[in-house]
Amino acid sequence: MPEYKAPLRDMRFLIDDVFDFHGSYAAQGASDASPDMVGAILEEGAKFCEQVLAPLNRSGDEEECQINDGVVTTPKGFKEAFAQYAEGGWMGLAADPTYGGQGLPHSLGLLISEMVGASNTSWGMYPGLTHGAMSAIHAHGTEAQKQTYLSKLTEGRWTGTMCLTEAHCGTDLGLIKTRAVPQADGSYAVTGSKIFISAGEHDMSENIVHLVLAKLPDAPAGTKGISLFIVPKFLPNAEGEAGERNGVSCGSIEHKMGIKASATCVMNFDSATGYLIGEANKGLNCMFTMMNHARLGTGMQGLCLGESSFQGAIKYASERLQMRALTGPKAPDKSADPIIVHPDVRRMLLTMKAFNEGNRALAYFTAQLLDQAHAADSAEQREEAENLLAFLTPICKAFMTETGLEVTNHGMQVFGGHGFIREWGMEQLVRDCRIAPIYEGTNGIQALDLLGRKVLGSQGKLLRGFTKIVHKFCEAQAEHPQLKGYVAQLAALNQQWGTLTQKIGMAAMKNQDEVGAASMDYLMYSGYITLAYFWLRMALVAEQKLAAGAGEAAFYQAKLATCEFYFKRLLPRTATHLAGAEAGSECLMRLPAEHFAL
Amino acid sequence: MPEYKAPLRDMRFLIDDVFDFHGSYAAQGASDASPDMVGAILEEGAKFCEQVLAPLNRSGDEEECQINDGVVTTPKGFKEAFAQYAEGGWMGLAADPTYGGQGLPHSLGLLISEMVGASNTSWGMYPGLTHGAMSAIHAHGTEAQKQTYLSKLTEGRWTGTMCLTEAHCGTDLGLIKTRAVPQADGSYAVTGSKIFISAGEHDMSENIVHLVLAKLPDAPAGTKGISLFIVPKFLPNAEGEAGERNGVSCGSIEHKMGIKASATCVMNFDSATGYLIGEANKGLNCMFTMMNHARLGTGMQGLCLGESSFQGAIKYASERLQMRALTGPKAPDKSADPIIVHPDVRRMLLTMKAFNEGNRALAYFTAQLLDQAHAADSAEQREEAENLLAFLTPICKAFMTETGLEVTNHGMQVFGGHGFIREWGMEQLVRDCRIAPIYEGTNGIQALDLLGRKVLGSQGKLLRGFTKIVHKFCEAQAEHPQLKGYVAQLAALNQQWGTLTQKIGMAAMKNQDEVGAASMDYLMYSGYITLAYFWLRMALVAEQKLAAGAGEAAFYQAKLATCEFYFKRLLPRTATHLAGAEAGSECLMRLPAEHFAL
Repeated sequence: MPEYKAPLRDMRFLIDDVFDFHGSYAAQGASDASPDMVGAILEEGAKFCEQVLAPLNRSGDEEECQINDGVVTTPKGFKEAFAQYAEGGWMGLAADPTYGGQGLPHSLGLLISEMVGASNTSWGMYPGLTHGAMSAIHAHGTEAQKQTYLSKLTEGRWTGTMCLTEAHCGTDLGLIKTRAVPQADGSYAVTGSKIFISAGEHDMSENIVHLVLAKLPDAPAGTKGISLFIVPKFLPNAEGEAGERNGVSCGSIEHKMGIKASATCVMNFDSATGYLIGEANKGLNCMFTMMNHARLGTGMQGLCLGESSFQGAIKYASERLQMRALTGPKAPDKSADPIIVHPDVRRMLLTMKAFNEGNRALAYFTAQLLDQAHAADSAEQREEAENLLAFLTPICKAFMTETGLEVTNHGMQVFGGHGFIREWGMEQLVRDCRIAPIYEGTNGIQALDLLGRKVLGSQGKLLRGFTKIVHKFCEAQAEHPQLKGYVAQLAALNQQWGTLTQKIGMAAMKNQDEVGAASMDYLMYSGYITLAYFWLRMALVAEQKLAAGAGEAAFYQAKLATCEFYFKRLLPRTATHLAGAEAGSECLMRLPAEHFAL
Repeated sequence: MPEYKAPLRDMRFLIDDVFDFHGSYAAQGASDASPDMVGAILEEGAKFCEQVLAPLNRSGDEEECQINDGVVTTPKGFKEAFAQYAEGGWMGLAADPTYGGQGLPHSLGLLISEMVGASNTSWGMYPGLTHGAMSAIHAHGTEAQKQTYLSKLTEGRWTGTMCLTEAHCGTDLGLIKTRAVPQADGSYAVTGSKIFISAGEHDMSENIVHLVLAKLPDAPAGTKGISLFIVPKFLPNAEGEAGERNGVSCGSIEHKMGIKASATCVMNFDSATGYLIGEANKGLNCMFTMMNHARLGTGMQGLCLGESSFQGAIKYASERLQMRALTGPKAPDKSADPIIVHPDVRRMLLTMKAFNEGNRALAYFTAQLLDQAHAADSAEQREEAENLLAFLTPICKAFMTETGLEVTNHGMQVFGGHGFIREWGMEQLVRDCRIAPIYEGTNGIQALDLLGRKVLGSQGKLLRGFTKIVHKFCEAQAEHPQLKGYVAQLAALNQQWGTLTQKIGMAAMKNQDEVGAASMDYLMYSGYITLAYFWLRMALVAEQKLAAGAGEAAFYQAKLATCEFYFKRLLPRTATHLAGAEAGSECLMRLPAEHFAL
């Protein structure tokens, strides 16, 4: 299986040279996040992921989680790794110091979570869901709720979940049936059944804090009648510790294609005691506040698994001897040439590299926006950051998972027949990645969110917020001696992006189906242009470093070569997505549903 | 899990109306293959696949094959199903009557194998590999070898394998290490180890006949020194029955991503008795004679799994209620609309439908060429059929498996979170399909075969053999009132195809890497144009039927709607592949191998 090495060099390139995280940390007053401290944290995080989590990845997949009488056991070593993670203070890295956190920037938390997800995606689900619950309680909980729950979650003694989906509804949460009945003591009796609850039950923590969407007896129909409840597995006792067992139980765990070591639970609530969090009937809004973070996190899984796959593929391609190069032997002393000499193998490897590094830039830029939205000095600054965040989030989630899945499939393909064998670990990355385009809002839903809600819903304002940035960059670099050709290509696409959007907007005024018909191609089209922008920002820095003779020339030249590959071989995919987005709804809608299969 | 129903209506549309199988059967003197007989055979085959094989598909995936002391046990029911298959005479359907076969056309065998593969891909590997061995023995065996082996294989009492790959070589067979030493009695002592041997060991048959590539002691180096041997598990005794155990054993079976019920074996040959088949040192040629058939069969797996996935997805999309249509409720009496009302869900379903039905047309056309190559009256006719076959085979193998994998992924996506859960059966189809782009020559190798060996290697002759057919069709239909727009689109692409090929050919004269750099995009580009041709042939028939008022209007209208979708939403992908094929090798080759990961 691929041995994971945290890509610290590339991470530092982005945070030091491309996005200047240190400058923004200083500007945001995050004085603890000094360059030295950030460096030390990344090194420590890398060590933990490489040495503790990565070795549990294959065994976790084979062992899977087990359930016995409602008790879920995680694979060997998972529990100990979590204890070590909590002990190291990783759970509270970016959490509020008032409740025991270290208060470091969210973007730094994201860098750590990249390494966690790349070394062991299944394991990463447990702290990942806890982070989600922490955000919700931090944003919407009362002071008492924060004191009780947030502190334990930050410590890593308790973990959290998000209980949204039911068997008959995932996307359409207005249909949920779980009910919450007010009790005399101010609590609620929560009854219902939730499915697909990641980390719903396991053996890693003293208590599990479920955040549950449910309906009050008098709630309005649909999404406007959903409230959010804290339903702990064990009710806190007078000391605030895990006390009496609540009416929550795990009915079963799912048998899945991948992330098999992540317990995906059916959770049954049987008059379980719950506490309202946030306002009644505003539960979905509470969920939405943490959605950007969660969706960015899911997008990251595409990058994480893509990075692991690349590391495996590049090693294999450099060692596996098979056939001679088309232009004659390159390793005449060996029985055959390493397969990296073959152009088509390089096509796969460069596709992987270009998506991974481009996606990493997109993710870090977005994470920086998260920091800015939290730390903004003015409402105006906050709105600007939040608008960009709102625009980029569905692109991160969907584009990074679609391309991540493509990357892991290329990685497997590079291995030939061995890629299909479980022991090599490459096919697990494909299986683990396959859920990412589905959960946390399917990519189809992300596409509707981007085009319908964000772009057209703001009359194009959210799109212009980003294209303006791209436009300014292109203007500034229009005469760049080495890059001007690419800059012109990006500028043309940036303009075309606006034209396409207007065209769809006009068509949608007559027929709303035009939005759904164009959405997925529109999202992918947007993603390719977005990544082109980030590739040029990276190329610009690389050119500067080379011109300055800053050393590490090979690293910067590789950036330029990968940028060239991206523009020549991947960016042309915009042509196909443009055609798809412009094709209209008629060819999708004319076939009657009952005539699809005859 | 999706309940498989053989798509007999679509199969009949192709063989009766589009390709006129009955006419060619009659012309080939295949008098047994009367329309009534063909109909009855398809009905019977469908029944067997739907009722016997399909119910074993999920359980086979969960049980997998087991090995104990070298003895391999297939999942429950597999053995009995094979006995029933043999009993029904299916093994010998298209086999030579001299050795107990029914002598029906190969194309009819392919239709049956489609239903087998769609209902249970893993199970289909056992008869599939036996068919391969039968072809080799029929083409290259001595009369005595045919009497001994072919008759038992045809009966289904014995099964066969193809032993090519070794741990250090799959693509590059010149590197094999297995040795065959001549013995005094004219046999050979075969020693070596083979991996990835499908059906190498199992409990379904009385004997297993391995066809093994090995090198004679004095063999020339590389692929010109490979010979083919028959190495049976049990040596035939005086009566021709399975006698003494030979020195062949199964060392282990692989743990795989998919086709888990197909035993993929490490086979150890320890001075095993083998018999030379065909000429010494001509073993690879012997293998190549059956390659077209085997590669078409692998391409079929993309169609098979795509068809099953579509059947599951269309049912789910029609029943699953989630959200309202963008244009307002379509099922106001229900809690939500069935998801098939959503344009993006339709995009996925129509993509599946368009690839499946297009791929089926491509496969049946190619199967008809197989018949023609076998039954040709003249050397000229045979050469024409064989050239077309040589050209279309890599397209069938690679394009049908790439698109088949895409289709199965869409099918899973339609199910949302449920698609990731094993019980629903949709993710198994993705896993089972994932091997098809890898084995029987990776798709990268197919692409090199198409562009390098077939197209450029024939100075474009093999391409022109097909583009001429497309050109004639476009000429004849240029004024078709309903279809002329599509005809013009196809004609333009058909011309562009030639131009692109010339361009690559010119570049390749200076630098052979240009072939590898362009190959994969060239293959996909070719596949999309090829399918466009077949979609128009189907649309033309549909228009004719509708004009003639032949009934079943909905079926024919669905063909036209799907054709429109194909031209508007899938064929534009040629633009991206064109750009990729034209991008040149420079952007792939400039990055030094050791700088891919820094």
